[in-house]
Amino acid sequence: MMSEFQKTKKTTITRLPKRGTYDKEIIYSILDEALYCTLAFVQNNQPSQIPTGFCRIDDKLYIHGSVGSYYMRELAEKKLPVCIAVTHMDGLVLARSAFHHSVNYRSVIIFSSPQIVEDENELYTALEIFTNKMQPGRWDDIRKPNKNEWKKTMVLSFEISEASAKVRTGPPKDDDEDYELDIWAGVVPLQTNRLAPIPDSRLKAGVALPEYLK
Amino acid sequence: MMSEFQKTKKTTITRLPKRGTYDKEIIYSILDEALYCTLAFVQNNQPSQIPTGFCRIDDKLYIHGSVGSYYMRELAEKKLPVCIAVTHMDGLVLARSAFHHSVNYRSVIIFSSPQIVEDENELYTALEIFTNKMQPGRWDDIRKPNKNEWKKTMVLSFEISEASAKVRTGPPKDDDEDYELDIWAGVVPLQTNRLAPIPDSRLKAGVALPEYLK
Repeated sequence: MMSEFQKTKKTTITRLPKRGTYDKEIIYSILDEALYCTLAFVQNNQPSQIPTGFCRIDDKLYIHGSVGSYYMRELAEKKLPVCIAVTHMDGLVLARSAFHHSVNYRSVIIFSSPQIVEDENELYTALEIFTNKMQPGRWDDIRKPNKNEWKKTMVLSFEISEASAKVRTGPPKDDDEDYELDIWAGVVPLQTNRLAPIPDSRLKAGVALPEYLK
Repeated sequence: MMSEFQKTKKTTITRLPKRGTYDKEIIYSILDEALYCTLAFVQNNQPSQIPTGFCRIDDKLYIHGSVGSYYMRELAEKKLPVCIAVTHMDGLVLARSAFHHSVNYRSVIIFSSPQIVEDENELYTALEIFTNKMQPGRWDDIRKPNKNEWKKTMVLSFEISEASAKVRTGPPKDDDEDYELDIWAGVVPLQTNRLAPIPDSRLKAGVALPEYLK
């Protein structure tokens, strides 16, 4: 298994290249932590994009949607080229100068194109991994899709082969002379938290909160 | 002041239209709470996108970057049409059936094109509001950009006139017969938190944490 994606013209990072990486492990960890991506495509020479949930299995990224969704059908039928982005904002970087203010982040950009997933096993696995990514442990607990629901669901896969990441970590970097200023500088970390689950008001009496949600 | 954006072919929501809104106040509140957007554009008929910080002032959205940034220059010189997206993930919606799993979210999609900001007053205001959006109270505290730093900074504005939002809130909606199942259902709220500030290791002795960071 290769450990780095090959750079292409599209994925080569030209701005602040020292923040760029093509490392597969880093790229996959950024993808696997994210709850959604934005998927950009071109229609009538106009850019368009849509935020959507996704999961990754090996070297493929999967999204799903309704067969009634216009953009899913467009993507599937025309095999439109896409650009997929995932971003984590990890912290606000407060420098002494306005100019050096920044953010700590991890982002991935993928260029690819869609394939309709028709193999039943692949469909089922994609939905299971998608659901358990959203909420670990959930899949075994719930009513699985019936025939009619499968008919209404379209799953698209995107090969991950043209991909790059950009990462900033650490403290602010100020100009030498600014370190003498009486200005507070540092990082405000950002964190996405899962709060206490809110039970549905129509929850059946006696159904306890599952272990995986405690 | 109009309170709703006029629907256009591009912004009309066709999938789950009841979640769609063109209300200006809702759209602006979603934008103002977000720390970054993704900006999609077309290059050589290929979709591309980039995550970037932004702020909104009245009916314009502002981004900034280095004059050395390839995509900033491309956008500015060619006035490329863009699609800008902002998304908040507010909660995981755990239904009794796999099929009805969902997320609570608020997202905005804007179609626009860039204008280079050259007016000094507009530049200064955009940077001030951008910085204070990232960290309220910060601008008054820091060293302002000098002439050389201004020269290195490009600010682009995008008129907000073709915009829509999509919002889901509330509990899961299951099929009638599934409410009898012994499956826990509800919502796991998601929240982005600012953690305790981490002072720069090179912080000048005696500089206290500012009030606005406490």
